[in-house]
Amino acid sequence: MSNKTRVGIVGASGYAGEELVRLLTRHPGVELTCATSRQYAGQTIGSLFPRYRECQVCFIEPSPEAIAEKADIAFMATPHCVAAEYAGPLLQKGVKIIDISADFRLRDPAVYEKYYKKVHPAPELIKQAVYGLPERNGDKIRNSSLIACPGCYPTSILLPGTVLLEAGLVRTDAIEAISLSGVTGAGRKVDLQYIFPECNESIRPYAVTGHRHLPEIEQELALAAGVPSVTLNFIPHLIPVNRGIHSTILFYAKEGCSAEAALAALHKAYDGKPFVRILAPGELADTKHVTMTNVCEIGCAFDARTNRLIVSSVIDNITKGAAGQAVQCMNLMCGFDETMGLI
Amino acid sequence: MSNKTRVGIVGASGYAGEELVRLLTRHPGVELTCATSRQYAGQTIGSLFPRYRECQVCFIEPSPEAIAEKADIAFMATPHCVAAEYAGPLLQKGVKIIDISADFRLRDPAVYEKYYKKVHPAPELIKQAVYGLPERNGDKIRNSSLIACPGCYPTSILLPGTVLLEAGLVRTDAIEAISLSGVTGAGRKVDLQYIFPECNESIRPYAVTGHRHLPEIEQELALAAGVPSVTLNFIPHLIPVNRGIHSTILFYAKEGCSAEAALAALHKAYDGKPFVRILAPGELADTKHVTMTNVCEIGCAFDARTNRLIVSSVIDNITKGAAGQAVQCMNLMCGFDETMGLI
Amino acid sequence: MSNKTRVGIVGASGYAGEELVRLLTRHPGVELTCATSRQYAGQTIGSLFPRYRECQVCFIEPSPEAIAEKADIAFMATPHCVAAEYAGPLLQKGVKIIDISADFRLRDPAVYEKYYKKVHPAPELIKQAVYGLPERNGDKIRNSSLIACPGCYPTSILLPGTVLLEAGLVRTDAIEAISLSGVTGAGRKVDLQYIFPECNESIRPYAVTGHRHLPEIEQELALAAGVPSVTLNFIPHLIPVNRGIHSTILFYAKEGCSAEAALAALHKAYDGKPFVRILAPGELADTKHVTMTNVCEIGCAFDARTNRLIVSSVIDNITKGAAGQAVQCMNLMCGFDETMGLI
Amino acid sequence: MSNKTRVGIVGASGYAGEELVRLLTRHPGVELTCATSRQYAGQTIGSLFPRYRECQVCFIEPSPEAIAEKADIAFMATPHCVAAEYAGPLLQKGVKIIDISADFRLRDPAVYEKYYKKVHPAPELIKQAVYGLPERNGDKIRNSSLIACPGCYPTSILLPGTVLLEAGLVRTDAIEAISLSGVTGAGRKVDLQYIFPECNESIRPYAVTGHRHLPEIEQELALAAGVPSVTLNFIPHLIPVNRGIHSTILFYAKEGCSAEAALAALHKAYDGKPFVRILAPGELADTKHVTMTNVCEIGCAFDARTNRLIVSSVIDNITKGAAGQAVQCMNLMCGFDETMGLI
Repeated sequence: MSNKTRVGIVGASGYAGEELVRLLTRHPGVELTCATSRQYAGQTIGSLFPRYRECQVCFIEPSPEAIAEKADIAFMATPHCVAAEYAGPLLQKGVKIIDISADFRLRDPAVYEKYYKKVHPAPELIKQAVYGLPERNGDKIRNSSLIACPGCYPTSILLPGTVLLEAGLVRTDAIEAISLSGVTGAGRKVDLQYIFPECNESIRPYAVTGHRHLPEIEQELALAAGVPSVTLNFIPHLIPVNRGIHSTILFYAKEGCSAEAALAALHKAYDGKPFVRILAPGELADTKHVTMTNVCEIGCAFDARTNRLIVSSVIDNITKGAAGQAVQCMNLMCGFDETMGLI
Repeated sequence: MSNKTRVGIVGASGYAGEELVRLLTRHPGVELTCATSRQYAGQTIGSLFPRYRECQVCFIEPSPEAIAEKADIAFMATPHCVAAEYAGPLLQKGVKIIDISADFRLRDPAVYEKYYKKVHPAPELIKQAVYGLPERNGDKIRNSSLIACPGCYPTSILLPGTVLLEAGLVRTDAIEAISLSGVTGAGRKVDLQYIFPECNESIRPYAVTGHRHLPEIEQELALAAGVPSVTLNFIPHLIPVNRGIHSTILFYAKEGCSAEAALAALHKAYDGKPFVRILAPGELADTKHVTMTNVCEIGCAFDARTNRLIVSSVIDNITKGAAGQAVQCMNLMCGFDETMGLI
Repeated sequence: MSNKTRVGIVGASGYAGEELVRLLTRHPGVELTCATSRQYAGQTIGSLFPRYRECQVCFIEPSPEAIAEKADIAFMATPHCVAAEYAGPLLQKGVKIIDISADFRLRDPAVYEKYYKKVHPAPELIKQAVYGLPERNGDKIRNSSLIACPGCYPTSILLPGTVLLEAGLVRTDAIEAISLSGVTGAGRKVDLQYIFPECNESIRPYAVTGHRHLPEIEQELALAAGVPSVTLNFIPHLIPVNRGIHSTILFYAKEGCSAEAALAALHKAYDGKPFVRILAPGELADTKHVTMTNVCEIGCAFDARTNRLIVSSVIDNITKGAAGQAVQCMNLMCGFDETMGLI
Repeated sequence: MSNKTRVGIVGASGYAGEELVRLLTRHPGVELTCATSRQYAGQTIGSLFPRYRECQVCFIEPSPEAIAEKADIAFMATPHCVAAEYAGPLLQKGVKIIDISADFRLRDPAVYEKYYKKVHPAPELIKQAVYGLPERNGDKIRNSSLIACPGCYPTSILLPGTVLLEAGLVRTDAIEAISLSGVTGAGRKVDLQYIFPECNESIRPYAVTGHRHLPEIEQELALAAGVPSVTLNFIPHLIPVNRGIHSTILFYAKEGCSAEAALAALHKAYDGKPFVRILAPGELADTKHVTMTNVCEIGCAFDARTNRLIVSSVIDNITKGAAGQAVQCMNLMCGFDETMGLI
């Protein structure tokens, strides 16, 4: 009998679920013992995702009991509110939770309600949740039982943004984050606007004044800057690629800021971190260098004319932006090498 | 013998040249009598552009004399400095010039030199050039013999931007224009970075602190705002689509500004203009609705939290951003209906 | 009051319907007076298709009466069986029908039933229907009131195939047609297999032993060859482009066949036809040269080693493969120039 | 000091070279000690391929001496004729060769000369070369010092084709192979026909009567069938995806052939082979399920009307079609597990 950690995926039928299947089935430290899906219960994972057709794990109907019976760690890849409903029962049964939905990202349940249009089902659990950005919160993640993995857009923005604010190189006001995402970011969603001919040869922004990832970005930037709040414009766009997010972030430079100073601060924060790569001065990021990896690449340019620091940051939205980061958190929680199963 | 206006294309072997071929060969008011290309001299246009394979016009070696002999109007689709060199001789021979290169866009030859790294070959002609944005400068275009057609990025930014500044709805400082362009925007250029596998599934910014279109945008925005200068951040990105530019422009709102007020100002400026369409409140632009047309679509949103007006503007970079706009100028210069050959 | 021909589109909410809107609204000889859609009744065409947002025609609930009141000609862009149900009532009221669905393509209602799994609703009308391939059946189309427009795949295969068989250059047995289609060919269908991430970076065949277009191709090839029947393999594939079909057709050469002989036969058949272009010997077709046009391009190569004539044929599946060809038929029926509104 | 096998890549600057970098740098059994490139000599691999930017191996000028000094095994990713020139000196110095160019694939130097337009530089070495299809020639590969890795198209066609011919299920005459390849198949080649706007939204065949992979396919099919020669039509097409080949292969069925019989033969041949997956009856292959993997997926359908077996086979052209298969060969040669570094 294997003494590997037993892991389950709750809500495994989407793109993040599929990527979790990829990562967890080849991870040497864990065994994928359970996956839930109301829609596909009774089918094997392999029959839904032909890329992993040899995977014989069967989807089961979700319930905290069924999951607790089979798994030591549950990855929640569910619509919002589900993880919050399952968290209590699962934690009580000793199952650790790595939530890649939005349920435990926001510290303030009122903000959750405003952006997700639902009353938070378990506000009392929020404060024990750790925001799952391993490069920032590694120690807390190691000791937590409830991880709130960041959204894809926030990951690309926060990895550079928190460091630059913390270093005092940039101002906390008048920040703009312009993000461009591949279509898997919209989920495995059957909707007219996402069929091929409607996305291909199309460039379009959406949700420019109140995307759900906005409060999460503001919350974490404020925390890093040590200020009560930060207010930014976040402008997401849909781009006809499968995977990848590019974020351009514009900050006002403080005294002493330059591309070199910014890059130095990023090096100081991330040298030795296996999944962040800081580009050379003048170099900008390109999503194609990180797709299908757990890497974030960050470049900086400085515009002296406007006194703006321009940050260019890329990730794979499904890997570092969701499933890969979740596995990275798991590695820390289990005492595995941080890169296990991710390289 | 036809009494149609005879038109020539100088430097016809690129994408803007190809689009001019498409538009001019089916235009009822003109006859395409001449096209030049050093590289393809002796071949027919149809042999280079199979889409227009029935076009029997032969490429000839370029020279002001050869062009003047065959054409009443010359479209300059040439690398920078060529139009400026040809303009004098051509104008002297009575040939009108519609320049889709950058040579006559900038009023100040020093700025030209700074951005194009060449001394302007004919600074004395700059002041007789009219900036060829027909929705803004229609009357001047009608009476001019030397048109400087705007760049593709500037067209998408200036159509909304000039109106909003002129209307006093937005501030002249702290403007950001984030633009996303299809790959034809890079020209029909044989370079490793533009081959299919390097562009497909790639999202990347470039030239974020000093793109050549920047001074042209600043110049025209300042003019519209009635101020000596405007300084903005212009952040272009390369996107894996063939055609289309989307620009997101962020302005600080002045007192009284709102999405509705902005849209009203745009309606006032452009209602009746055949090639500008103002979207409904809350609607954002999508390049796929304008590709292969001469239309610019503009939407607005207002973010009360940050007091920013967010403008979303799309064009086809090759049509409204280059060849189509050039033909629209020609229509005005020739007294044709503004839409002739363009719908 | 306009004395233009009044045209209606029945089932206008798909991609063929959208293309009919494009073509009919700018056609100088007709007026689009009516469009039906159960789903979108009450909305304007412009609200559904933002590309044509100025189009104020309202979708109405479909019924033969409503259509007959408003239109002299009805384009049927409906699921199968609908056109067959409407045809009787519409013809009786004097409305001519151009059917771009499959209802009147097959001469034998038993074959229809076999491939479409429905009893043909109006078998008595089949024999008055004319197969709407204008380059082959122009005279019959001119005098008909009921046109069965060919499918997209058949159009690309029949334009070369019928001529080569008729000319006796190739054998009637052992024909293969391998076709590659853009995703609009699947319709404006909201289905998981057609969302962007499932189509992009994917190449796949489908329906390789009994696609619905197969019997139609066989029927028309047999007719051209003057034989009772022809049996071929038809292998369609889905390709991540929006528009375009490429068909490679493999024939066994008869005595005297060569690329040159095949091209000569094609020239003889199609010289003077405005929408067929025969390529030079050795040249093969590329969809990008015909997208957004009503043109079919045909190239030929001969493989002496295997004695096969290899035909390469491209069309735009939505234009020449559906809406454009329908308008071309209409032009003939109305006595307009064949190219009116199509160039 | 590491006792890992030292491997080098000769001609490492193309897409196959890049994929070798990916696979060899994370392979636990080998160390990448050397890479050659005339063009990039002096630069690190990481500077050329930003995806692998941490790779500090420097490109050096190629020469058999330089390679032999640093490597036990040399992967040849060079234009044709180079591997044949280097093979003698390298073998003499005890370096094993895994050639992913075409130099040692064809048994007959006259056929090489006909298709590659060069006299073969080392015909005497041809007979010691083993055709590097591990699923077919595993034992020979284990004991060889000179591997001729198959071309990408041949791999996709031979894996199913050899088995079906060997099993006597299909006829050896009148075979057609229609293949669709992503653009990386054309190499990292800077040529107008491969820039993004020329490939995107384009579908086109090429080299339909004499592609260089044709004789290699015919040679290996004949060998499997036990006949002196097989003659087929091979029709390649270029498709706008980055990676992936789909081949449809049409065979005439012999008595007793059916989809089930074909699948059974394939199962018998490949069950237990880690990189071949046989699909269920009726299922066809899709490139997206194998990209970025070393897997070949094969499906079959049977058309009773025409008595044809239709085989659908997919690989990643760069992995199983080039670099991955080369590493798989290396694993056998070195006594590693066949899947090492490939899953």
